[in-house]
Amino acid sequence: MSKSNPCQGNCPIARVTALLGDGWSLMIIREAFLGSGKFNEFERRLGIARNILTNRLRKLVGAGLLKRRESETDRRVVEYRLTAAGRALFPVLIALSQWSEQHLGDCSHSVRYVERATGEEIRPIRVVSADGRELDAGELVMLPGPDADPALRARLNAALDQAGSEAARAAS
Amino acid sequence: MSKSNPCQGNCPIARVTALLGDGWSLMIIREAFLGSGKFNEFERRLGIARNILTNRLRKLVGAGLLKRRESETDRRVVEYRLTAAGRALFPVLIALSQWSEQHLGDCSHSVRYVERATGEEIRPIRVVSADGRELDAGELVMLPGPDADPALRARLNAALDQAGSEAARAAS
Repeated sequence: MSKSNPCQGNCPIARVTALLGDGWSLMIIREAFLGSGKFNEFERRLGIARNILTNRLRKLVGAGLLKRRESETDRRVVEYRLTAAGRALFPVLIALSQWSEQHLGDCSHSVRYVERATGEEIRPIRVVSADGRELDAGELVMLPGPDADPALRARLNAALDQAGSEAARAAS
Repeated sequence: MSKSNPCQGNCPIARVTALLGDGWSLMIIREAFLGSGKFNEFERRLGIARNILTNRLRKLVGAGLLKRRESETDRRVVEYRLTAAGRALFPVLIALSQWSEQHLGDCSHSVRYVERATGEEIRPIRVVSADGRELDAGELVMLPGPDADPALRARLNAALDQAGSEAARAAS
């Protein structure tokens, strides 16, 4: 992405896109959730070139999503395992997967996410209000947080002004 | 991504990564949620090169996430607006954003997601069981759905076997 991107600053979506939006990192994270740990497992199961895999694993370790450790079965072998931050991507992966199955391509139902203890499929991931009601995008506003930099603050305030003037136009 | 990717087939994460994992598409979707519609708005606010923006808008329209329409204020101008499928990415964006703020970089709180009607911040996005309990990754299994192709079916079954043998080893 462009280094001159005016809203890259501290927008959380920009940060996560820079880290995970490279076409492979999310697949590597998916593999880690499925139990892959060794370099050769990632390589074989994803069909990824070794130099790209090396690069992406280094990036994911550097960002604190994966950690390197000795294999339990062979101490000469290094494994990559999800850290707490990596495991916290779980709702993101499920939300992406559910959206993909519902809206991309042929609406095929290729993966079922099932609770181990009950055998029941989980609910769709939703945005929920402080008191537990489901919200849609129109019911939400994005406001600058305490750490928003000037560029992000300006962007979010401009969006609020635009929404306000559109609402005024619709009401007039 | 490699065309020989053995699990690209109909894995929903692979499909969504191929579409949105290019470093710009998620930012364009974010801009659309913030109210951008015109080519020049996306260009200026994202600092994206015109040829890349043209390419990504075409891809997002082709995939049914954005639709082209005449501007309400100037019928000679085309606007890009989110379709229902595009708007359904809302929980994905919020989940990504919340994760990013909590786990990337300096844990800064740069965006607040607030319910318009109440002024209250929303809850963190969670994976929830059929009866509403919050689940973590270890409580879930991924099973092949009715439309899983043989490659995905084999991958998910292998992960189940691996989890089973690890549980047996831990118990022995």
